Amino acid sequence: MAVYTHVSADEISKFIESYDEGEVISFKGIAEGVENSNYILQTSKASYILTLYEKRVNPDDLPFFLGLMDHLVHKGINCAAPVRDGQGIILKNLCGRPAALISFLPGLSINRPGPDHCFQLGQEMARMHRAASDFELGRKNALSVSGWKDLVNNCENRADEVSPGLSELLHSEMDFLAANWPQNLPEGIIHADLFPDNVFFMGGELSGLIDYYFACNDILAYDVAICINAWCFEKDGAFNVTKASRLLRGYSRERPMSEPEIMAMSILCRGAAFRFLLSRLYDWLNQVDGALVQLKEPAEYITKLKFHRAVKSPSEYGMDI
Amino acid sequence: MAVYTHVSADEISKFIESYDEGEVISFKGIAEGVENSNYILQTSKASYILTLYEKRVNPDDLPFFLGLMDHLVHKGINCAAPVRDGQGIILKNLCGRPAALISFLPGLSINRPGPDHCFQLGQEMARMHRAASDFELGRKNALSVSGWKDLVNNCENRADEVSPGLSELLHSEMDFLAANWPQNLPEGIIHADLFPDNVFFMGGELSGLIDYYFACNDILAYDVAICINAWCFEKDGAFNVTKASRLLRGYSRERPMSEPEIMAMSILCRGAAFRFLLSRLYDWLNQVDGALVQLKEPAEYITKLKFHRAVKSPSEYGMDI
Repeated sequence: MAVYTHVSADEISKFIESYDEGEVISFKGIAEGVENSNYILQTSKASYILTLYEKRVNPDDLPFFLGLMDHLVHKGINCAAPVRDGQGIILKNLCGRPAALISFLPGLSINRPGPDHCFQLGQEMARMHRAASDFELGRKNALSVSGWKDLVNNCENRADEVSPGLSELLHSEMDFLAANWPQNLPEGIIHADLFPDNVFFMGGELSGLIDYYFACNDILAYDVAICINAWCFEKDGAFNVTKASRLLRGYSRERPMSEPEIMAMSILCRGAAFRFLLSRLYDWLNQVDGALVQLKEPAEYITKLKFHRAVKSPSEYGMDI
Repeated sequence: MAVYTHVSADEISKFIESYDEGEVISFKGIAEGVENSNYILQTSKASYILTLYEKRVNPDDLPFFLGLMDHLVHKGINCAAPVRDGQGIILKNLCGRPAALISFLPGLSINRPGPDHCFQLGQEMARMHRAASDFELGRKNALSVSGWKDLVNNCENRADEVSPGLSELLHSEMDFLAANWPQNLPEGIIHADLFPDNVFFMGGELSGLIDYYFACNDILAYDVAICINAWCFEKDGAFNVTKASRLLRGYSRERPMSEPEIMAMSILCRGAAFRFLLSRLYDWLNQVDGALVQLKEPAEYITKLKFHRAVKSPSEYGMDI
């Protein structure tokens, strides 16, 4: 949560001259975003987020991410819109970094979502899936089955430092998922990181989805499984079936799920829990001295993974079957 | 540069209900301020800065700081105004911290100020000194001569780790300043930290002074000396007499300096350089693991101190004598 690249007053004023967005009135680095440097910018016309893409983002992916946001906005999805400069260009360069000016999306992220927030999230995610279906670019999910294998190989020797028995759990889960991961479910573009941080509400109404920098092509219902993990467990680790049920109902209202999707929900949830367990574990074991990022506990996702391993029927997620 | 206390959407929405400032539309932690947690807040009415005061600020000083800002705004000085809640209260509590809502001051801080910026700074600083003259509260400067002695005692054993010979320099300078520090110059409330970070410009015009959290009663011309150190040296260490001359001329236009003030400028500049050398040295030698603050080099102020030690006449600052 930091600003990695510092942009001076002269640099930002000159940069904004290339747009038709008025003059800079205020410019402040914000303590958000683990991967990139973000500024809140006010001009004589409006407010914006200025993002400078840092080393963990592959510049080759930026046309996909920014093009997707642009596509979704034009389809009526509430998401931040990339702003074109006077020559129609979205992806620019500032202080030696790829950079983009993004419209300011009002709203607050909620740290304790209730069932109605989950319902709205499900609805908006399904609308987003539908709206993205005719986007012309694609991006492989680097954090799917083969990516998990790389992370398991990287972490296995030291996993037990974090939690005794974790190394064995990683291996048995990896074997199961590799052998059973669904092959024929509907695919499309997913957000892949719809945590509460990335969903804004205003006056109780969902006002937008942000941070598309993990978006990729994958199983659509896997996006739902990521949200079940991120939205439907309480702080103490308990699963809240009411929230899951509302999330699934909201989703299905906009994009009804097929029976194979419903039957696969438990393995998709296992995969989602495994993916976040692995990336958190990797970051935990490879801490950078002086890093400005607050690390997230891997243990939370061990608990979630174990919950899904014990699920016998989709009805345990509150699904209508 | 970080947010130390995290305020949730529920907490900020409830907090803002106590004001007559509309509903929260957006709320983001900003990567500014070494001492406190700062958020940029937009409501249906306007934009604000919300500050939560962290451990390095003495809560007993807050009525002075906030009262001073309120006083200056009413006197027509461009500074951020503390906002009163529905009951007229400025200093509040949020998430267990003292907190205040402050009006949003437009403008950008300039990292390479030119002579005209220095002139405007001098003018506005003098206006601020005049406007503060009838403020009823007072605050001792903890970082004046006796405070410097404490820092010298704390740092002397390890000072040479930072720069060989520094320990001896600290002692000789401390002795000189203690014996010769001016006793009878005009005093009043000074800002005491008017670095370029804390001065906003918009379209080339000074739009405001911020961050009054070092303000105190001291020699008025000492505030000028702090600015000569902070604004009139180039990045390579060279002194820019044109900038200093413009700064002093701007100041004198609003509050003409007496002859004793002019004659004392060199020792005041030595004292100001010494004060920032000492605090940076202290922070350098007492680094906190995992701190989110980027430390500033003490060496820059060794160079500045040595410059002032060699000054023979106020004319070397571009002063009219």
